[in-house]
Parts: sequence; structure tokens; C-alpha cells
Amino acid sequence: MATIVDVAKSAGVSKSTVSRFISGKGYVAKDVQKKIEKAIEELAYVPNEVARSLTQKKSKLIGLLLPDISNPYFPMLAKGVEEYFYEVGYQVILGNVKSNNEIEESYIESFSMQNVAGIITANSENENSKLKTFNNPVVMTDRAYKESEYGVVSDDFMGGKLSAQEILKTHPKKILVVKGPKGLNSLEERFNGMVQVLEGKIAFDVYQSHSFDFGEVEQDAKIIFEQFKETDSMICPSDIHAIALLHEALKRNFSVPEDIQIIGYDDIPMSKFLYPALSTIRQPAYKIGMEAAKLLHALIDKRPVTEKKIMLPVTYIERETTRRK
Amino acid sequence: MATIVDVAKSAGVSKSTVSRFISGKGYVAKDVQKKIEKAIEELAYVPNEVARSLTQKKSKLIGLLLPDISNPYFPMLAKGVEEYFYEVGYQVILGNVKSNNEIEESYIESFSMQNVAGIITANSENENSKLKTFNNPVVMTDRAYKESEYGVVSDDFMGGKLSAQEILKTHPKKILVVKGPKGLNSLEERFNGMVQVLEGKIAFDVYQSHSFDFGEVEQDAKIIFEQFKETDSMICPSDIHAIALLHEALKRNFSVPEDIQIIGYDDIPMSKFLYPALSTIRQPAYKIGMEAAKLLHALIDKRPVTEKKIMLPVTYIERETTRRK
Repeated sequence: MATIVDVAKSAGVSKSTVSRFISGKGYVAKDVQKKIEKAIEELAYVPNEVARSLTQKKSKLIGLLLPDISNPYFPMLAKGVEEYFYEVGYQVILGNVKSNNEIEESYIESFSMQNVAGIITANSENENSKLKTFNNPVVMTDRAYKESEYGVVSDDFMGGKLSAQEILKTHPKKILVVKGPKGLNSLEERFNGMVQVLEGKIAFDVYQSHSFDFGEVEQDAKIIFEQFKETDSMICPSDIHAIALLHEALKRNFSVPEDIQIIGYDDIPMSKFLYPALSTIRQPAYKIGMEAAKLLHALIDKRPVTEKKIMLPVTYIERETTRRK
Repeated sequence: MATIVDVAKSAGVSKSTVSRFISGKGYVAKDVQKKIEKAIEELAYVPNEVARSLTQKKSKLIGLLLPDISNPYFPMLAKGVEEYFYEVGYQVILGNVKSNNEIEESYIESFSMQNVAGIITANSENENSKLKTFNNPVVMTDRAYKESEYGVVSDDFMGGKLSAQEILKTHPKKILVVKGPKGLNSLEERFNGMVQVLEGKIAFDVYQSHSFDFGEVEQDAKIIFEQFKETDSMICPSDIHAIALLHEALKRNFSVPEDIQIIGYDDIPMSKFLYPALSTIRQPAYKIGMEAAKLLHALIDKRPVTEKKIMLPVTYIERETTRRK
């Protein structure tokens, strides 16, 4: 690959002239500019990003921390982040944190060493997180939002309310609210929204799930069908939970939605392909990623930011796992 | 964040002594070493990776090119790559190429500018790809393999054969082979394997699909059910195709597998949660990512590589969308 020295030789000028031309700092005569441009084009010269990063203490890299990339919700969010930053000339380093604080710390340290220009995290909040001492801007999204200065999420409280309201309209006999893993702010909000709608209106059971992992959620589904035999309506904290419950219901020869109705959360790409197709609350994962990237980009460029925290609306997607009203 | 100057001050030594200590080049007295170590720990000093990258022309970064991160197969592969490199102190830059040559080129250019130590690509082969002129090692996987020097895939030809063999055992009346998008080597191999088993034994139709996109594959499924009314057995190039066909079959009130049987390819995490659960050929996506990372790491470290091309076995996962033999 061509170096700055090759460009200088080919253009018949000194290395420092080429350097002045590239950095845009200092005078370079018009005709010399043309010679250098021609040499750059002919040699397909790419100025070294690493050298730029070293002098400016800020690279063209973004760090993205995700709790679990095998959960189909997060690739959509990552896609939004990646597509925005691609357009503005940044690359995204992927950090799959697996909800492990040690891995998170280690990634933040690596990001510092790479002079990463900013971080977007969807990882859950962590009291002692090194993010708090990270020098460049940080935007929180999804599971991390409450304590942050800058963030983009969807309206989890409203989403929780919405799913409970939709179930209430269908004259449920006995409701089970499946609560997602503890300590995640977004899930607490959803649960609070659900409870606010249901309380005082109808009795309901609560089951505490501890995972988003397919295998573990499959076990939850088995326990739920053994334990809550009266339930005819299930409100879920994610589509993964809803899909596992739907599978278990059909395996046990229940009709869905006649015997058991199920409402999910997220609207992952697969949900509409289930049979019956899943009724769910749609979070705009791609848009959340895109907006978080846009906000982070403004912070990196030190442009004025009017909305430090952005909350995007959620919508109810009625499909076939809920009864008609 | 602490700098090398802070460390030097705190340890009461010169900056160049700290620098010698960190690089391991040159003599530093034992008691001075201890002082520096203590200062580094107290100040939580992180040596700048960018400076290291500049002198060595090789960063601790890996480039990963994927065709589409919203296809659930690829996050599993990415997870394998990321988890391997996390353990050995590298970070992975995500390039979601969207099967677009221009985006691929642009990413490869950016990777060069970042002094990326190596690239793993699952993107389809591209005659004029800039990968061929990339200075550091490249490992191809999944869709890109045939033309490459180093690669990790699963045995697509055997997978194709396996899916056709399993369908043949169930006494199919009329088979439809759904062929995946053209120009992807892995899909050609699968198709060739299927055809080799079926030809001369039974008549079969072929439908050419042009996408892995959920929306477009949904359209394919509608066309297929209109066009191939005799078909009772469908062999698919991916689980996405199989899921769309399963959904369409159930919507049209066919019994699966009694009226229509369907076999997928990949075994994405969702497949076992469908109802009926999907019979499919399992590709070890996570392991492919892991092995590709291991191979690339050996190349980066210039360790001897005995197997330049690794082909991992596939397995048939019998679930509920195929008839019992």
C-alpha cells in the first residue's frame, strides 16, 4: 500500500508538503495541490487513520456495548448504529458484553486504548461502571438509560401499559404477567406500566423469569404451564418469552388464542412468521440505534444538543395470538 | 485519564524510563520497576494502543465483514469471532456490508486506515474485491471460500445431500427444491448436493429465490404455494425460507408434515421454537466464527498453519416438519 513518501516522490514534492496538503493546515500552491491530488489518485493512497488518531487523541472508531448479540433484538439496534456511522465515516467496534461486568470493564479499557471517539451502550447499568470515567461522550440506550446524561430508548412504561390494556379489552379470565430479569431498568418500567393498568381492575399472577437465553426461557415456559393452570392470558417481557410460551401451549394442545392468549414485547423479525403470528409491542430497535448514533455523533462534533434524552414511541401490533375484542 | 507523564511523575522517574518499562525494551532497575508498577496501578494508567499501532503498523483490531447482521445466522458467527478475539486481547470492528460491493470496498479501505491486523469476511466473493490487495491476513468464511487461500466453512455439499436424503426416506410424492440467491458459492454447493441425490431417483421442481430478506422471502412463499400445487415436500436453502413456507402452509390450512413437509438449513436459534418445530440441517455458525478467528490469529502471529482450509461437518436435526420414516 502506498505511503505518504510514495505520494511525495510521485508528485515531485517534499513529504511535508504532502502532509500540509492532507491536513489542510498551511499553504500549498494550486499547481502543487493538483500534482499531489493526481499522485494520491494514481497510487490509491489512503492517509493513515492511526497517525491522525494519535495527534488528535480521537479516532474514527465508535465502541458499541451489547448485552447479547444472539438475542435477535440487538442485531437490529446494532444495524441502526452501524448504518448511521458508516455514512459519516466512522467504524463500530462490537463489544458483546454478555451481561458480565468484567467483560464490560475490559472493553471500556480497550476502547480507551484505541482512542475511541464515543461509546453507545445497551448493556445494563452498573454502579461502578468505568463508563463514568471514560473521557469521550457516551450515549446509553435500551437497558441503560435512567442514570445517564444522554440516552435514547423507547417508552417502556407506555409499552407495558399498552400490552396490559390490550389484554384487558379481550375479557381475560386469569392473567399471568411474566416479569423479565431483575435489575434492568427497561424491564422494570414495562412491568410497572403493566401493573398500573391491571391493579384494582383484575387479579393477576406474576412469574419472575431470570433470563433471555432461549434454553432457560424454554424451562420457564414448562414451569409456567405446570404452575399456573388457571391462566388464559400471558403478558410477556420479550418476544423470546412469548415464543417459548406459544411453543409450549401448542405442544400441550391448547388452542391459541382461544384457550390461551399471549402478547409479546419487541417485535423481532421472526414474530410475524410464527403460526399463529405473535401479537406484540413493537420497539423501533433500528431507529433506537440510529438515533443513539446521531446523538453521539453530535456530541463528538461538539454540536449543540437540544434533546439529551430521546424517548421513542412504541406501538401495539395486533396479530393472531390475542383474541378479537 | 492518566498519561505516561503522570505515571513518571508519581513514580519519581523520567518519562523515558516508564516508556522503557512498558515496552520491555532496555534496562530498568528492579526497585524502579516496582515504583512504576505501583504508579500504574494507582493511576489506573492504560498505555496508548494507538501509539503502539503506529510504530508496529498493526493494531489490535480485527475487521469483520458480514452480508447482513439482521439475518439470525450471522450474529452467531459474529459471536464466535468476537468471543475468541476478546480472550486474546483484540477488538472486532463490525462491517455490515449488505451484499453491496461499494460498502465492502469502503470498509476494507477503512480497515487499512486503522491498521487492522486481519480481516474475516462472510461476504460473498467479489471478483474485484480490494481484499486481494489488503496487506494483512484474510480468512474467508461462509459465503466466501472457494477462491480464498484461508477459510473456514461447513460442508455445504454434504448438507445439501443430507437434506435430500432425509426427504427421500419419507416417500415424498413431489419434491420442490428452493434454490437460494445466485452467485453465493455455499448455496451453489448445497444445491448441487441436493441435485446429486435426487437426480435419476425422483422428479423434482426447482424454484429460484433471490433473497434472504424476510419480507421478500414471504412473497416467495406465496408464489410457491400458487405455482407448485402438487408439491408435498420442500427442501430449503435456509431456515428463513423454511419458516416463511411453514407459515404460509399453515395459513392455507395444510397439515405439516402430513400434507406438506419442510426441511430447513442453518438451525438458527428460533427454529426449534416453531410449532411444529423445524427439521433442518445444522451449521455450526458459532464454531465457524471461532475457528475462523483462531486461524486468523495464527496468521497474524505468523505461527505455522497446517490446515489452511477447514471444513466443519453439518448434522441433520430431525424435528416435527418432516414425516417419520
